[in-house]
Amino acid sequence: MKIVIIGGGPGGYVAAIRAAHLGAEVTLIENKFLGGTCLNVGCIPTKVLLHTTELLDVLKNDAKELGITVSGYEADWKTLQKRKTKIIKKLVGGVKALLKNNTITQIMGTGVFLNDHQIKVSYNNNQDEISKDEEVIDFDFAIIATGSKPVILPIPGSVHPDVITSDAALSLEAVPESLCIIGGGVIGCEFATIYNAFGCKVTIIEMLPDIVATMDRDIVKPLKDKLIKDGVEIFTRTKVESIKEGPDGLAVTTSSQAGEKIVTAQKVLLSVGRKPELSTLELEKAGIKTERGAIKVNQKMQTNKPHIYAVGDCNGGVMLAHVASAQGIFAVETIVGIRSQIDFKTIPYCVYTKPELAGVGLTEAEAREAGYDVKVGNFPMAVNGKAMIIGETTGLVKYVTDAATGEILGLHMAGPRATDLIVEGALAIHLEATVAELKSTIHAHPTVGESLMEAAHAVKSESIHMMR
Amino acid sequence: MKIVIIGGGPGGYVAAIRAAHLGAEVTLIENKFLGGTCLNVGCIPTKVLLHTTELLDVLKNDAKELGITVSGYEADWKTLQKRKTKIIKKLVGGVKALLKNNTITQIMGTGVFLNDHQIKVSYNNNQDEISKDEEVIDFDFAIIATGSKPVILPIPGSVHPDVITSDAALSLEAVPESLCIIGGGVIGCEFATIYNAFGCKVTIIEMLPDIVATMDRDIVKPLKDKLIKDGVEIFTRTKVESIKEGPDGLAVTTSSQAGEKIVTAQKVLLSVGRKPELSTLELEKAGIKTERGAIKVNQKMQTNKPHIYAVGDCNGGVMLAHVASAQGIFAVETIVGIRSQIDFKTIPYCVYTKPELAGVGLTEAEAREAGYDVKVGNFPMAVNGKAMIIGETTGLVKYVTDAATGEILGLHMAGPRATDLIVEGALAIHLEATVAELKSTIHAHPTVGESLMEAAHAVKSESIHMMR
Repeated sequence: MKIVIIGGGPGGYVAAIRAAHLGAEVTLIENKFLGGTCLNVGCIPTKVLLHTTELLDVLKNDAKELGITVSGYEADWKTLQKRKTKIIKKLVGGVKALLKNNTITQIMGTGVFLNDHQIKVSYNNNQDEISKDEEVIDFDFAIIATGSKPVILPIPGSVHPDVITSDAALSLEAVPESLCIIGGGVIGCEFATIYNAFGCKVTIIEMLPDIVATMDRDIVKPLKDKLIKDGVEIFTRTKVESIKEGPDGLAVTTSSQAGEKIVTAQKVLLSVGRKPELSTLELEKAGIKTERGAIKVNQKMQTNKPHIYAVGDCNGGVMLAHVASAQGIFAVETIVGIRSQIDFKTIPYCVYTKPELAGVGLTEAEAREAGYDVKVGNFPMAVNGKAMIIGETTGLVKYVTDAATGEILGLHMAGPRATDLIVEGALAIHLEATVAELKSTIHAHPTVGESLMEAAHAVKSESIHMMR
Repeated sequence: MKIVIIGGGPGGYVAAIRAAHLGAEVTLIENKFLGGTCLNVGCIPTKVLLHTTELLDVLKNDAKELGITVSGYEADWKTLQKRKTKIIKKLVGGVKALLKNNTITQIMGTGVFLNDHQIKVSYNNNQDEISKDEEVIDFDFAIIATGSKPVILPIPGSVHPDVITSDAALSLEAVPESLCIIGGGVIGCEFATIYNAFGCKVTIIEMLPDIVATMDRDIVKPLKDKLIKDGVEIFTRTKVESIKEGPDGLAVTTSSQAGEKIVTAQKVLLSVGRKPELSTLELEKAGIKTERGAIKVNQKMQTNKPHIYAVGDCNGGVMLAHVASAQGIFAVETIVGIRSQIDFKTIPYCVYTKPELAGVGLTEAEAREAGYDVKVGNFPMAVNGKAMIIGETTGLVKYVTDAATGEILGLHMAGPRATDLIVEGALAIHLEATVAELKSTIHAHPTVGESLMEAAHAVKSESIHMMR
């Protein structure tokens, strides 16, 4: 069985490895960088930068109280950039080695559909070992995993070298004095955290009523408070009208109910979302249908051509690396005839700020909208012993449950280690666990994780460590 | 319904609050400090000290690579001691307030059984509002939760002011130049981490073949390696013969197959275990039976007198704060006639060192001994992207499963956030989840938690990110 996969990001390379595990003959085509957006200009590099901001935050706010007198410290953007590059290189090298280990044919080049059973590859110029320029590959099955690219809003003045997207924002030569971030979603808030920690004056402009609109309101608030406390200016329900070059940098003209306002900044970061990257595929030659700029797939990730699948950002679903990987595995398992068990109700959403945010399942608002008789259990991080010890008492754990059955519909958390602790919520949702079952499970003391048990108790106002 | 609880630690005070929630009339008697060993001289203060050592480790080993140039830093034991006291005070104050909020009668004094329905309380002298010296209290039910105290081995020379237990080790006036720790269990390793980070020369003497004998060997190894790398000397299969005062401090004479050896240290920490604290209860007056120095209880925490319960360390079971709390809740629920659902198969064991260790369920050795056809899934932390970003790539995740059914029998982990991530294993065990169910649950990228999914995949050699 010959499977060709176009796109070597977390959707494509994971699908390739899984397919090889299952005995398929796999060719993986990538035209830019192995590991895709995630490893090269997404999840990984942002988290490398964010990790250093955590230490900066500790040095600034906590070290003295922890009993460590620091005589002086300086953040060095260039060293951090080197670390970022080193980690990316290591991880990309790891992916390359894994592909090789699984005897997957790796092609650095651009794949174009000739018809629904052939792809023509134009090899990249920088290949060492390749003598030919292009090649036609036949396939039994294809998986498209070409990912996404940042959306560029048609704002007057947005085509300017100092108006950048997240790709460039990861690798600025130096930290700008000021940065105006258009779009207060996950990416916007992570970059606000990074650049603010490095001494840059950051302003966020968000059109919606609140930042990070996709997550539960209760967990977003602690992040918003922290950003504001740290000096980030946030304007919500605010639209960007134009960007102009002024004497002190770029002048971003915004409008809101309060009227017009100009934000001046050295750089402007456009982080208003991402859209599928389909530009090089020539999908029409294979007869593959798209819808609103994304490849149309069914629940099995099949396009209208049942032997061609599309996974990850390019199908316009939830644009997260772990979803792409899960869909990639799902597609491959479907191709070889295994009934894949991956449960797409268990997708965790994470924001790697301080506090960390994480959510899985339904938010309170979504559960109410879906018609559930919702019962919520909240436990404040301020009462958790370990959070106190770590010095990170901002945040809360929130369970969203079905009052009728006690079933857990969602877990939402702001606080230390939230992006990891969310595992409990995902497993609970997959196993259709009830609040009672959460409560029956012993949680270690003193851990942040205890707060998840307490929040479960709080659903019936039975949390031991909360006043009644 | 009148319930008297003797002991205000995590067994007693949690039982008291749960009993109040359920409508009982509750009196809580504590003779030393509210919050017990855990809050005052156990879990909490050790973790406060350990948290500072984490930052010291980052400053020493990681800061430069993270892009932060620290010109100098100094660890200040006295400031840290103040922080420790402050956090204890806050938490103890919190417990006091919770008890009050639940209208629980709090008595600082010593409770002595007069018979199996009466306790005589001798009030502590330092009470402000109490005019009487003692009082007799009738009860319908009693819960004994008097905790434990360090075991003092009858080593010649161990009665010396510089031979201390964990209680004193938490509050030394200054960091000694050298410390010999007798007993390489959890407490010993945590103190080794603390004092070593503060520049003290630490030696651990352990009689057994390895340190932290209670946990899975595979996760203990990374900790042992790290301790040794950091300069801690560890002697296993080594017995302490005597302690003598010498010219350079205490001389600890040890013996092993290699012969006799003398370890010289300014202080000696005895951390060879703890034993039930029953000395003030006069249990015989109530006719309560003990066995090997512990109160004998059945699975419902009932003593031989069915209306008298014993929870936590004093019943000689697993000596952990969260077990005491769970038993306390279990006892109260049994008293009021609720069928308590707490699942004692889900007890997590944690060590707050670097790497953190955590385990729940059966170790590989235990599972084999129990006759299971064991299949193990290991995933090394070194391959986890987030661990690489955090700079904590030492350790692994290990699932112990039943090959016949795929059921998860144990989860063991050494690595960042292990003490929190163990929640997934505990819930999986409670819900009798299988490896397949773990794999069906989406884990966020990039998180340490992903390694739990990978370890689940590794059970069938299907981990995406491991070479085959």
